[in-house]
Amino acid sequence: MPTRSPAQTGKRHTTAIVTLLTDFGMRDAYVGIMKGVILGIAPQARLVDLTHEVPAQDVTAGALLLRSAIEFFPPGTIHVAVVDPGVGSERRPLLVVTERGVLVGPDNGLLHPAAVACGLRELRVLDRAERFRRPVSRTFHGRDVFAPVAAHLACGTPPAELGSPATGMVELPLPAPRRDGGVVHGEVIYVDRFGNLVTNIPAAELASFPAQNLSVNVAGVSGIPIASSYAAAPEGALLAITGSWGLIEVAVRNGSAAQRLGAGRGAAVSLGN
Amino acid sequence: MPTRSPAQTGKRHTTAIVTLLTDFGMRDAYVGIMKGVILGIAPQARLVDLTHEVPAQDVTAGALLLRSAIEFFPPGTIHVAVVDPGVGSERRPLLVVTERGVLVGPDNGLLHPAAVACGLRELRVLDRAERFRRPVSRTFHGRDVFAPVAAHLACGTPPAELGSPATGMVELPLPAPRRDGGVVHGEVIYVDRFGNLVTNIPAAELASFPAQNLSVNVAGVSGIPIASSYAAAPEGALLAITGSWGLIEVAVRNGSAAQRLGAGRGAAVSLGN
Amino acid sequence: MPTRSPAQTGKRHTTAIVTLLTDFGMRDAYVGIMKGVILGIAPQARLVDLTHEVPAQDVTAGALLLRSAIEFFPPGTIHVAVVDPGVGSERRPLLVVTERGVLVGPDNGLLHPAAVACGLRELRVLDRAERFRRPVSRTFHGRDVFAPVAAHLACGTPPAELGSPATGMVELPLPAPRRDGGVVHGEVIYVDRFGNLVTNIPAAELASFPAQNLSVNVAGVSGIPIASSYAAAPEGALLAITGSWGLIEVAVRNGSAAQRLGAGRGAAVSLGN
Repeated sequence: MPTRSPAQTGKRHTTAIVTLLTDFGMRDAYVGIMKGVILGIAPQARLVDLTHEVPAQDVTAGALLLRSAIEFFPPGTIHVAVVDPGVGSERRPLLVVTERGVLVGPDNGLLHPAAVACGLRELRVLDRAERFRRPVSRTFHGRDVFAPVAAHLACGTPPAELGSPATGMVELPLPAPRRDGGVVHGEVIYVDRFGNLVTNIPAAELASFPAQNLSVNVAGVSGIPIASSYAAAPEGALLAITGSWGLIEVAVRNGSAAQRLGAGRGAAVSLGN
Repeated sequence: MPTRSPAQTGKRHTTAIVTLLTDFGMRDAYVGIMKGVILGIAPQARLVDLTHEVPAQDVTAGALLLRSAIEFFPPGTIHVAVVDPGVGSERRPLLVVTERGVLVGPDNGLLHPAAVACGLRELRVLDRAERFRRPVSRTFHGRDVFAPVAAHLACGTPPAELGSPATGMVELPLPAPRRDGGVVHGEVIYVDRFGNLVTNIPAAELASFPAQNLSVNVAGVSGIPIASSYAAAPEGALLAITGSWGLIEVAVRNGSAAQRLGAGRGAAVSLGN
Repeated sequence: MPTRSPAQTGKRHTTAIVTLLTDFGMRDAYVGIMKGVILGIAPQARLVDLTHEVPAQDVTAGALLLRSAIEFFPPGTIHVAVVDPGVGSERRPLLVVTERGVLVGPDNGLLHPAAVACGLRELRVLDRAERFRRPVSRTFHGRDVFAPVAAHLACGTPPAELGSPATGMVELPLPAPRRDGGVVHGEVIYVDRFGNLVTNIPAAELASFPAQNLSVNVAGVSGIPIASSYAAAPEGALLAITGSWGLIEVAVRNGSAAQRLGAGRGAAVSLGN
């Protein structure tokens, strides 16, 4: 397992991993086209899809998913993320070197939570047009800007040859939970495929309460018990659990909490005794 | 083409294939995260998706799909399957060495049909926590247990270093067709993307009947003719055919038999003259 | 980057790229099975999905998507395409060598637009059964014919060892725009995931008009302005733009033109002052 990224060492690294996260969906060939461009420049790159089903133009959902995944990839991984309603406008194309890997994508907040979580080291604006696919379209910078840049990184091209130093990336402040006496107030930030409600309340908060009678309230339903596993709850029961994001999730055993509660992103959540 | 699995030889096999089958869907980043974990341990592993659209918690559908695919992969392929409603409970995490490859996943029946079809050779319970990603979550053993174990297998770690010998995997008895005089009675076991109804009646049964007037009955519709290809039937017509699973399927040419017949998994099917 | 295809040189090319485009969907394991067959023959092939969500049996949509993607892959790429309602009938299985890469799939028009766009060099009918997976099923030539042939190409087997010279591939004439005085008349040929309406009017037509008051009419809505980027239009506004296919597209900023206009494939479009 490499301990330094290609970007760090400047050496060709034939097994560089390039992940892709977009809102392009799987119906069209846009993702395949990005991969063709990458492999044309970096034939040995290892391509991994994070997801391409980010809801169209939903920068916040894309940012959360990228942040949720990035820590599980080896150091030096290159992450390309494209949820880009401002494509073709003045929004900057960015390259972000972090302690764990390199992020490439539009400067619209998409990369910000991952950059913060991984330790931002260096920010560059992609302004070396000779590294792009040309002519650069006004609608598909994933193909013409971000894929080629990621491929050059995968070949060991240093970030300094891909863009100029920049400051002040667009931030995407995620809602923070707040503690009010004996209660932590938060909200649902993501609903996954299973209908699990991912909240913004860190699971570590559980340790700050006496376990007795600790429960979660969401969408007007109170007293949802903390469970140690899905299987520890009765079939069909609501439960709160430490989810795989390290955050408290509300779930239904073998069912969908989102459907049961009619709750989605932004729904208020509280945790207390 | 390798004739011995990495698990068998104990040698590093840089092109080990690791397939993934889950019910995680493609919307979230869970599958991508598993791949990140695998590539962090086994950078050269070849990752292939079988499907991630197994209906949520549908162990039977996952088991059938795994079994339908496994024979088409080279010997020594490592198959990770995660449809795991019991994650975090006492259900055992398993490693199954077969004549064709190695299966990794929960002991809930998911691996059983594939293990039987491929020739079960060795069963182990995954109890070497030092091989897991730690801390092990209570909700995502795909990431913390099964992906790391598959990656170690891909690196050539022998099964004996990943788990202790075990017996008695949870079985998933698939419904067997039965012959009653001149009629074979079976049922629909899977409905595919095209609306084809895959039955549990082996196509080999066709040879045991006189071809004349042989037909299939399903969902109250009788006399569905046996066709040699979709194109041999008129546009929009119901037909029965030897499907790619080696089982009799009921289809509509350029249409959906499931929609036409309002039939799904469990629907009774019979074959006779 | 290779400048000659494996097919051209006849040399083993360990990083041959094989793309896959089908209407098999992602729910079943059919695509994974094709990959297993390919990797069993060509363990080093680089597999890239173009899309598997071509609407079932929609040869035209598959043909357009293949054509839209092929130019972005390196020379020598092998493209397998399977939208094959005539599987098992007399329709021929084809191999098409073009100036850019090799196409493999059924002779039903699916490969035709890509072959024309890339410069058809050589056409062969796949008639070397010893190169197929046997027995060849009547329903899944993607697995039994096209995947093995693509894998042999990826291993450097020359096309001449895979099929006999042929002529007269089935054509898929795409609707051509026509100019009538000061107006170009065309139609919508594809609707993408975002609801963008891809027309058959080349963006190059824009240069033949005075820019003043140039606009697009579609589905009874006239005066849709030409925009330089999505972001140049007001939120929610209809706009026409040079899309990534090099064709004029009608879009809604941060919305779906298909939904807004109730328009789909075949809808009449005109461009004029």
